[in-house]
Formats: sequence, C-alpha cells, structure tokens
Amino acid sequence: MGTRRDFIEKLTVSAVSLPILYGSTNLFAASEQPYKGPKLRVAIMGLGSYGTRVARAMVDCERAKLVGVISGTPSKVIKWQSEYSIPEKNCYNYQNFDNIKDNPNIDAVYIITPNALHCRQAIRVAKAGKHVICEKPMAINAKEGQEMVNACKDSDVKLLIGYRMHFEPKTVEVVRMRIAGEFGQPKFFQGQSGFVIGNPNQWRLNKKLSGGGALMDIGIYAINGARYILGEEPIWVTAQETKTDPIKFKEGIDETIQFQMGFPSGAVASCLSTYAMRHLDRFFMTGEKGWMEMKPSSGYGPIKGQTHKGELQQPHSTHQTLQMDGMAQIIFEGKQPIVPIDGEEGLKDMKIIDAIYLAVNSGKKIELQ
Amino acid sequence: MGTRRDFIEKLTVSAVSLPILYGSTNLFAASEQPYKGPKLRVAIMGLGSYGTRVARAMVDCERAKLVGVISGTPSKVIKWQSEYSIPEKNCYNYQNFDNIKDNPNIDAVYIITPNALHCRQAIRVAKAGKHVICEKPMAINAKEGQEMVNACKDSDVKLLIGYRMHFEPKTVEVVRMRIAGEFGQPKFFQGQSGFVIGNPNQWRLNKKLSGGGALMDIGIYAINGARYILGEEPIWVTAQETKTDPIKFKEGIDETIQFQMGFPSGAVASCLSTYAMRHLDRFFMTGEKGWMEMKPSSGYGPIKGQTHKGELQQPHSTHQTLQMDGMAQIIFEGKQPIVPIDGEEGLKDMKIIDAIYLAVNSGKKIELQ
Repeated sequence: MGTRRDFIEKLTVSAVSLPILYGSTNLFAASEQPYKGPKLRVAIMGLGSYGTRVARAMVDCERAKLVGVISGTPSKVIKWQSEYSIPEKNCYNYQNFDNIKDNPNIDAVYIITPNALHCRQAIRVAKAGKHVICEKPMAINAKEGQEMVNACKDSDVKLLIGYRMHFEPKTVEVVRMRIAGEFGQPKFFQGQSGFVIGNPNQWRLNKKLSGGGALMDIGIYAINGARYILGEEPIWVTAQETKTDPIKFKEGIDETIQFQMGFPSGAVASCLSTYAMRHLDRFFMTGEKGWMEMKPSSGYGPIKGQTHKGELQQPHSTHQTLQMDGMAQIIFEGKQPIVPIDGEEGLKDMKIIDAIYLAVNSGKKIELQ
Repeated sequence: MGTRRDFIEKLTVSAVSLPILYGSTNLFAASEQPYKGPKLRVAIMGLGSYGTRVARAMVDCERAKLVGVISGTPSKVIKWQSEYSIPEKNCYNYQNFDNIKDNPNIDAVYIITPNALHCRQAIRVAKAGKHVICEKPMAINAKEGQEMVNACKDSDVKLLIGYRMHFEPKTVEVVRMRIAGEFGQPKFFQGQSGFVIGNPNQWRLNKKLSGGGALMDIGIYAINGARYILGEEPIWVTAQETKTDPIKFKEGIDETIQFQMGFPSGAVASCLSTYAMRHLDRFFMTGEKGWMEMKPSSGYGPIKGQTHKGELQQPHSTHQTLQMDGMAQIIFEGKQPIVPIDGEEGLKDMKIIDAIYLAVNSGKKIELQ
C-alpha cells in the first residue's frame, strides 16, 4: 500500500514540477488556449440514471466526448442515439460488446452498471483493448477488484475509477492544503455519508446486483474521503451494523454501518454509512494546526466547505464534466490527479469494504496489512 | 433504567402541568416577582480552578449562596473568606468536615475535588445530613456511584450531579424540541468532545486521583448528551482506544477513545473523547423530520446551535449560575429539570463509562441491561 504515500511524499517536495491536475483545465481557462487536441471517445455501458447524468455532463467536456453506448434496452439506445448523435456502428448490447475491439472510433468504455456486473464487464472491455472507466465501487470485493487490475494490466489498458470528488475543486483544494502542511498533522476525520433510499425494488437493494448495501454505494465516500483527507492508509477497522427495516433492507443489504479506522500516525476516523437517515453528507477533519469541514461533502450539487482559514471559494462545476475531462488528460497526457483515480486506488477501498463487513460479522477489530 | 423514559413519557402528555425548570428563573424575570424566599446555602469542597469558577458564578445567583468552604489549604481558605465574606465557623478541612452536621447555616456541600475522592466525601457529607452536590463524573465507576446513591437515600438528603448543560438554555430548548416531536424520531447522534490538555502534572492525568482519562472528564459530555438528545438509554456500546503519547497519558489514562452506542429505537450514536485534539466540541443529531447541531456544545462560553428551524436564539447566562439557582429550586421546591440531574442520572453515565472501558479492554460489544 506504499504507492500512494510515496506519491504524496514526492509531491510534497516537488509539487511545482509535477503535472498535477487541480480539477479541470476549465478552471484555468483564462490562461490557456482553447483545447484543440484529440478527444477521449467514450462509450457508456449502462444507460440508467447515473449513466444519464454522466452523458449530460459530458456535453460540456472539452477533452472527452460520448460516442457510443452499450445497453440491453433497444429503446434506450434509440433515445440516446438521437440525443447525443451516436452512430449505429457505436451501439452495442451485452452480448456483442466484445466486438468493440474492432471499432477504432472508441477509446474507452465507462461501466455504469450494477456493482456485481463490473468485474466481468471490465475484463471483457480490457480484453477488447479499450481503456476501462468503472463507476465506484469498482467491484463487490477486493478479489474481483484485483482481477480487474490484473486484466487491464495484461491488456495494457488504463483502469480508472469514477471517483468524481478527486476532480472537485474544493476537495482538491483541501487535499492540497493537507499536503502543504496547512492543517499540521491530521488527527481525526469524521465522514457522515448517507441518505434515505427510495424505491425498494431498485438494484441497489438487490444483493445479487449490488453486492451489499449503503456501504458499497455511499459509505465508500467516507472511506475514500478518510484516505484522501488524512493522507494515510488505515491499519485497522472496527464496525457496527444496525438494521431497523429488515423488509426494505434484506439479508446482505446493510442499512446503517458505523465504522472506525486507525492510521499509522495515530490519526483516527469515525464514519457513518446509511440508507436510512437524512441531513448527513459531512466531512470534518481536525489537525494539529487547523481544521476543515465540508458540508455537503460528496453530493452532486455545489460542495460547500470551510477551513480555519475561511470559506472555500473554488467555483462549482459539474463533477462529471471535470472528471471526464480529467480522465482524458490522464489517459492521453499521463497527468496525475492530486488523489489517484486508478484501479489500485479503487482496490484499496475494496479491501477496506471487505474488512468492514468482516468486522461487522465477526465483531472484531480487523487489522489491515 | 425506566425512570427517565417514564418521566419523559409523562412529560410528553402533560408538559404544561409539570413544574419543569427551563433554565433559571432569570429567563422569566420579566413575568416574575424578585425572589425573596430562602437561599440554598452552599459550602464548596475543593477550592481548585473549577471550584473558583463555581464560586464566582454563584455571586450572581438569586436562590443559592456560597456560605462555606472545605479545603486542605489554609491560605486558600483565608483568601476565599475575604473574597466571599465567609465566616470562620463555616470553614472546614478534610479531617473535620464531618462536623458540618452541627452547622445549621449550611444546607448543601458541592464536592469539586478529584474524581477518585468523590465517593468517600459524598458519603461523609450525606452522613452529616447535608444535601450533596457532586461534580461530574460523580465517581470513578458505577459501584461507587451506587454507594453514593444509597448513602444519600439512607440519610434522606438529595444527591445532585453538576451537569451544568441541563440548565443551559439552548440545550434545554433542543431537548424540549425533541420531546415535542419536532425532530421526529431521532436516528443518529454524534458527539465530539475533546481538547488538548495542558500541564502533564495535573490530577486529571493521575489515575489514582482521576480514575481515568479524557472519557471521565470530557467524554462524559458526549455520553450524557447522546442520552438527553436522543431521549433513550443505550443497549450496547463498542469502543476503540488510541494512544499517541504514552508519556503524557500513562497506563489507565485514556488519551483518545472513539465509542458507539445503540438504542432501543434503532438510533445510534458515534462519539469521540480526547485529550489530544483541537477544534472539537460538537453535538449533531438527525431525526426523521429535522436535525440539530450545537457547536460549541458543552464549553463554558456561549453555546451556539442551529436546527432545521434556524439558529437557536436563547440568551447565554453563566452555566454555573443557572445550575446553582436551578438546584436550589429542585431542593427547596421539588421542581424537575427537563433532564434529570440526580444521582440516578449520574449513575447511568457511570455504567456506560464502565462499559466503554470494558469494550476497550475486551475488544467486544458490551450489552447494557
């Protein structure tokens, strides 16, 4: 697990010389020429509500473009073709999408399907020789995540996880402040991630498709946030599950999990993951010299935040627009986001998710390597 | 553990008819005659920094008056005598204070000594026939707390614990809102209680005098807060300890403990107790219909808070002034604070503190009766 920390250490000494992406180039538009280079040509796999959100956001991208779709629902394909001018030859279904290997007009596939399908689909995309962008959680456990990392390595394609917050300007600023030492040594992170989930028949509440409940879907923001806000990898986790509605949240679908993590420096994290509470979505960190609060911390709307230095002023842009432009720069220009976005990063979260479920089921503190 | 809930239930149906103290009568001064009745005549035992704070606050009391001292330091006694016009006959030391039984001019003794001394001292005060006011934590474990409750019952004197927040107007308002159902069913409480403790030689860092570390001193606010904000008694606790400075925080003195509690309704609490972090002191609760945040939540200065209905506007008064006036009304008029303040209330917190230490040491979830 040293890669990210090594990266951060390097960053601390030579931040200026590294090609770090501080959000989209849109943020620096005034000082830059309009982008005229190649665009990342993306096919979206899974035309559900989040896929739709990404497609709409990509309309405003400078460096990425939606050019294809993969769907099991022909009526959706027709609708998207007309809405986004997608040619017939870039439309696939779940049976034939391996043929994308013969399509020179698609660079990457963004997998936005139920979690339990990600692994097999990602491996097929990798084998077709296309870059894989996969929505979080990258898979339903670390074993699957590792298989995806291996497959993409074997096929020499990139694997990027849809961590949109890594491109969100206020989040990026807080991470920059932490790296620059402006908070001093971080001591405590608190992440409250949750909402009241609606339709009880959606795939997110079906263990076979989701692989788990709130932790997979929303709790992962607190896990990922703890890591990028504290700048360390946890060495232990403990967790406690509470279920008040076993009809809506069936066996294997967690409603509410509180989890805690300990880090090598002695910093600790206290997190909440829930599908059954309102008014959450807050990150808080206190360090030896300062503090930060983001509320909301990971919703789609404008993130709001303040630190001991005052309110964060970075302007809001649609997260998915920033993300897809940023991913284009990573793939085409080898740039690095301030927080990694690759398969190894996703895998770290999956290992923690595995450990949290193990802690819930065993009632024990789980040590992480 | 039903007493408090029974009380709350009764309260919900007949709030108007019960003589509830909503903070000091100072808050209702406009509609009341100036108080002319008897004052609660209090001797303070332990003339340290918090005892000094209480003494100063009592100068502004309407219904309570500092009339005596118990101290092992003659120079302090002389200073207090001159500062608060305390007659010689109301001054005692730790050897002779049992003689207070023969003093008709003292009604109650406020014990503000190191935690480990509370139990023996409270029992001696009770045996002297005086009401006992004891600073929190009431003792160093539930066994001692129970002995104190029993002794005061046997001597037919009141035992009140120095929970100043139970008289703080914004806190009282939030509890009132919860009882009135304005938040709906509470779902989650988060209490972050901590500060960076100074002088490493103080009694609070000496296990023989303090009985424990941050949890005893500051973590108890989060425990007590979880109970009065949620309005339930926990049925389980889990806890994790982290120590980064074993020189300052010796064996038996906890530096940082994260603890979690579960409640019969399915509500959960996530709390932090620490002697090693800044920028904390926050209570947060989200319910089915609303939310509340208090920040700071338990410091001496003005408490600040907001709910889904807006900012809490209740004016600040010195907490200890409100507390001592309120305690006088409890003792003389049989009034009830909105949250109990008696020995049984203190004992509930001590049982939870015992369970948290047991959870830390065993690594297990501890079920509470």
